[in-house]
Amino acid sequence: MSNRLRVLAPVLCAVLSAACATAIPSSDRVPARATIDLLIDGGTVVTLDGNERVLAGGAVAIRGSAIVAVLDADAPRPLAIETVDARGHLVIPGLVNTHGHAAMTLLRGLADDMPVMTWLTQFIFPVEAREVKPDFVYAGTRLACVEMLLSGTTTYADMYYFEDEAARATAEVGMRGVLGQTIIGFPAPDYATPELALAGAERFIATWRGHPLVVPSVAPHALYTTPLDVVRRSHALARKYGVPMQIHAAEIADEDERVRGSTGLGTIRALDSIGVLAPGTLLHHVIWPREDDVARIAKGGAATSHNPESNMKTAAGVAPIPDLMAAGIAVGLGTDGAASNNSLDLFQEMDSAAKLHKSHRSDATAMPARTVFRMATIEGARALGMADRIGSLEAGKRADVVLVDTRTPGLTPMYDPYSLLVYAVKGADVRTVVVDGKIVVRDRRLTTVDVEDVMARARGLQARIRSGLAPTP
Amino acid sequence: MSNRLRVLAPVLCAVLSAACATAIPSSDRVPARATIDLLIDGGTVVTLDGNERVLAGGAVAIRGSAIVAVLDADAPRPLAIETVDARGHLVIPGLVNTHGHAAMTLLRGLADDMPVMTWLTQFIFPVEAREVKPDFVYAGTRLACVEMLLSGTTTYADMYYFEDEAARATAEVGMRGVLGQTIIGFPAPDYATPELALAGAERFIATWRGHPLVVPSVAPHALYTTPLDVVRRSHALARKYGVPMQIHAAEIADEDERVRGSTGLGTIRALDSIGVLAPGTLLHHVIWPREDDVARIAKGGAATSHNPESNMKTAAGVAPIPDLMAAGIAVGLGTDGAASNNSLDLFQEMDSAAKLHKSHRSDATAMPARTVFRMATIEGARALGMADRIGSLEAGKRADVVLVDTRTPGLTPMYDPYSLLVYAVKGADVRTVVVDGKIVVRDRRLTTVDVEDVMARARGLQARIRSGLAPTP
Repeated sequence: MSNRLRVLAPVLCAVLSAACATAIPSSDRVPARATIDLLIDGGTVVTLDGNERVLAGGAVAIRGSAIVAVLDADAPRPLAIETVDARGHLVIPGLVNTHGHAAMTLLRGLADDMPVMTWLTQFIFPVEAREVKPDFVYAGTRLACVEMLLSGTTTYADMYYFEDEAARATAEVGMRGVLGQTIIGFPAPDYATPELALAGAERFIATWRGHPLVVPSVAPHALYTTPLDVVRRSHALARKYGVPMQIHAAEIADEDERVRGSTGLGTIRALDSIGVLAPGTLLHHVIWPREDDVARIAKGGAATSHNPESNMKTAAGVAPIPDLMAAGIAVGLGTDGAASNNSLDLFQEMDSAAKLHKSHRSDATAMPARTVFRMATIEGARALGMADRIGSLEAGKRADVVLVDTRTPGLTPMYDPYSLLVYAVKGADVRTVVVDGKIVVRDRRLTTVDVEDVMARARGLQARIRSGLAPTP
Repeated sequence: MSNRLRVLAPVLCAVLSAACATAIPSSDRVPARATIDLLIDGGTVVTLDGNERVLAGGAVAIRGSAIVAVLDADAPRPLAIETVDARGHLVIPGLVNTHGHAAMTLLRGLADDMPVMTWLTQFIFPVEAREVKPDFVYAGTRLACVEMLLSGTTTYADMYYFEDEAARATAEVGMRGVLGQTIIGFPAPDYATPELALAGAERFIATWRGHPLVVPSVAPHALYTTPLDVVRRSHALARKYGVPMQIHAAEIADEDERVRGSTGLGTIRALDSIGVLAPGTLLHHVIWPREDDVARIAKGGAATSHNPESNMKTAAGVAPIPDLMAAGIAVGLGTDGAASNNSLDLFQEMDSAAKLHKSHRSDATAMPARTVFRMATIEGARALGMADRIGSLEAGKRADVVLVDTRTPGLTPMYDPYSLLVYAVKGADVRTVVVDGKIVVRDRRLTTVDVEDVMARARGLQARIRSGLAPTP
C-alpha cells in the first residue's frame, strides 16, 4: 500500500464500511473501527473468478468465515483486526482434493511395486480387516488432514469406514471435508452388511448435516464389489438428505465384464439405468469409459475425480480426461489414498496431471497449466457440488485461502503464476492456510492440533500394524 | 550411542584411529584426540554399498573430503570435531542429476504448453541468442545449484554455453559438477563456429582439470544440429584429456531421418561408426532407439541419462529405460533444464520415473522404488564415470551426504526407506547437505552463498529478458 493510501485508509475504510454495512452482519467481537477480521494484503492474488483476474499487490478481505472483498493494488483497504503480509506470495483459492481414503496414510509405503490385485488381496485388505477400527480412522485421518493442510489443500473428499471418526478428526484439524461413509457388498470393518452400513450412513448424515466444515456423503464402493440395488438405495439416501454420493466407477480395465455378470450392463450404463449419473454424484477415476459412456455421464450431470499419480503407480490405465472435459463434465483432481500414491501433495499431483496427458497424447499442448490449476480448485469445487461456496477467491464465498511463498530459489523467477503453481510450486512452499476464515496454518505450523501428537499416535498404530504383519512372509 | 559406548568411545576411537592411520592423512587442523572432522550420527543410513545395507541408528564418519567409515548402531564412534545429530533422518548418498542446462533456470516458466518446435524456435532459441551472456550463465547456474543443493542433489551434469561461468558458479556454491562446454553446428552465444568452440572447450578443460568439485566435459549438442565430424573431434578432445563427453541422442521421434540426410545412418549407428559409444560417453534421453541400437550402446559401453519429467512435459516420448537397464547400460536420472520441467527437484523426478514406466507398461512392478533410487545415486554416478568416487556411502568415497528429515506428517509412518524416498520424500524434506566433506546446507540454509543475492540477481536478469520479449506478440 502506498503512503498516500495508508493515510487515506481510515477515511476510505469508513466509506467502504458503510457500503458493506448491509452485506456484513455486525459482530460483537469486531472493535469499533475494524470492519473485517482478516486482511491478506500485498500478494499476487490468483482469483479464478469469472474473469480469471490475477491481481498483483492485491488483497483478500475476510469477515467471519466469508470473503467480503477481493481488492486490486489501488483499492482502499478496510481496517482489519489482523493483517497478513502476503508480499512475495501467491494468494490462491484453497486446493480441492476430490478423492482419497484419508486414514490410509497409516499404510503409506506398506506395500508397493506389485500387481494391484496382489497388493489389494494380500496386503491392503487383510491389514484393513485386522486393523481398521475407530482409533485407526481417527489417527490416520488426522495425519492426512495435517499433511493436506500443510500442502495447501483445504477441502477433501473421503471414502472410508467409521466415517464418524473421520469427521471428528477433520473438524478438529479445521479442514473442509466431503466425507463418505462406505457401503460395500462384503463384511466391512465397521458394518457387517450393506443393510447395516446404509443405516449407519443415515445416522452419520443426521449427525453431521449442517456442520460448517463437514459435508456428509454416501459412498457405495463400486459396482464390482456392491450390488446394483445397494447402490440405488445409497443414491436414494443421498438424495433424501441432499448430500453427495460418490462411487469408484470404470476404474478397472475389465470392470465392465465383471459388472455385466450381475447387472447385464457395463458400469456406466448400469449406473445410468438406476438414475445415478445425476448432479450430486461423483464418479472416481473413470479410466475405462466405453462406447457412449462419456456422453452418458455428461448428459446425466455426474462429475468425476481424476487421480493421475495413483493410476500411474497402480498401472490402472490413463483416464481420457481431456475427452471428459471436452464433454463438459466437471473433473476434479485427487490423490487417492496414501497407500497408492504415496503423497497427498496436490501440487505434485497437478504437475503429474499436466505431464501425464501431454506424454500419453504425444501433445505438449494437452492439459495446459491453467486448466490443471482450475481442476485442482474451481472445477474440483464444481465436482463436489460446492462451486457456490469454494474454489475461487470471490466475495461471498467461504474464506479458504492459501499463501504460497515464492521467495525461494526453486520458484525464481516467476513469469506466469499458473505455470509456477503447476510446474514448480511444491506443497512445502505453502506458508499460511485459511479455512472458513480461520488461520489453520501460520508460517507452516498448525494452529489447531499438536502435530507431534498426531505423528506419535500414527507411529503407535504403525507398531501395531507391523506386529500384525509379522507372520506374513 | 548408548552410555556404555559413550564411555568407551575415546578408547575405541584410539584403536580406530590407529587402524585408519595409513589411510587418513594427518591434518594440522585436527585437534589432538579427534580423529575425524565430521560425524553424522543416529540416522537410518541408506548406504547403497555392495550389500545395500540400511543401518538404523548408523553413522557416517568423514575426514577431510572423504568418508572414512560407515558404522552400524553398535559400532564405537570416533571422536569428531563436529557431530551432526541425524536421529529421525534418512542419511543417503547425495543425489546425482545426470542431465541439465543449469542456467536455464532463468527461463523457468517463460513458455510452456506449446509444441516443442514452436517453444524452441519462437521462444527459447531467440531469447538465448539475445540474452545468454557470461552474466546470464553465472547467475542462472548459481540459482540452479542452490535449488539443487536444497533438494538433495550434490552432483550434476551440465551442458550449456560460457561453461567457465558455470564452473565458477558451481565451485562457489560448493557443488560437484560435470560441466559440458557445448559444441554446436550453428553460431552459439559463446562461439561463432564449432572450430572456435572446440578450441574454447580445450581451454576450459585445461583451466578446470583437477579441480576438487568441477569435472570439465565436452558436449557436442546432437547429431541433428552438429556435423558428425565435429562430434568425432569433440570425442577425440574428451579422450585426449580423459574427461566425459555428453550428447543428446535419439531424443526426437524423427531424429534418425534428420541425421540420415547428413550421415547416411541413424543417430546411434552414426555415433557407433565414429567410435563414440564408448565408456566415458553419456547419451542424453535415448527415447527412440531403433533396431539394434540398445545392443549397440550396451556393447560400446556408453551410458544414458533419463529425464522423465522433461520428456513428459515436451511430449517427447517415453524412453524404453527398463530395456536399457536390462541390457546393462548405466542409466542415471536427470531433470533436464528448468525451462522444460520446470523444477530441479530430483526427488520428484524419482517419483515420476517410477510412475511413468508403470503406467506406460501397464505393469505396477516396473521400476520399483529401489531401482529408481539407485538410478538417482549409484547408477547416476556410474553413468558419469564417477562410481569410484560418489553415489554410495562407503569408506573411501567422497563425502557427499544428504540428511532427509522424516519427522513430518507427509513422511509418517515409514515402513520402507526406499518407498519413502521415491514416493513420499520431497526436496524440501532435505535438511542438511554435505559435499566433499563440507556442510553446504545446514538446517535448510546455504553456508556458501547468500541466497537472497542469488535470487535478486536472477530477478534482475529476468527483468532484462522480459523487456527483450516486449516486441514479441
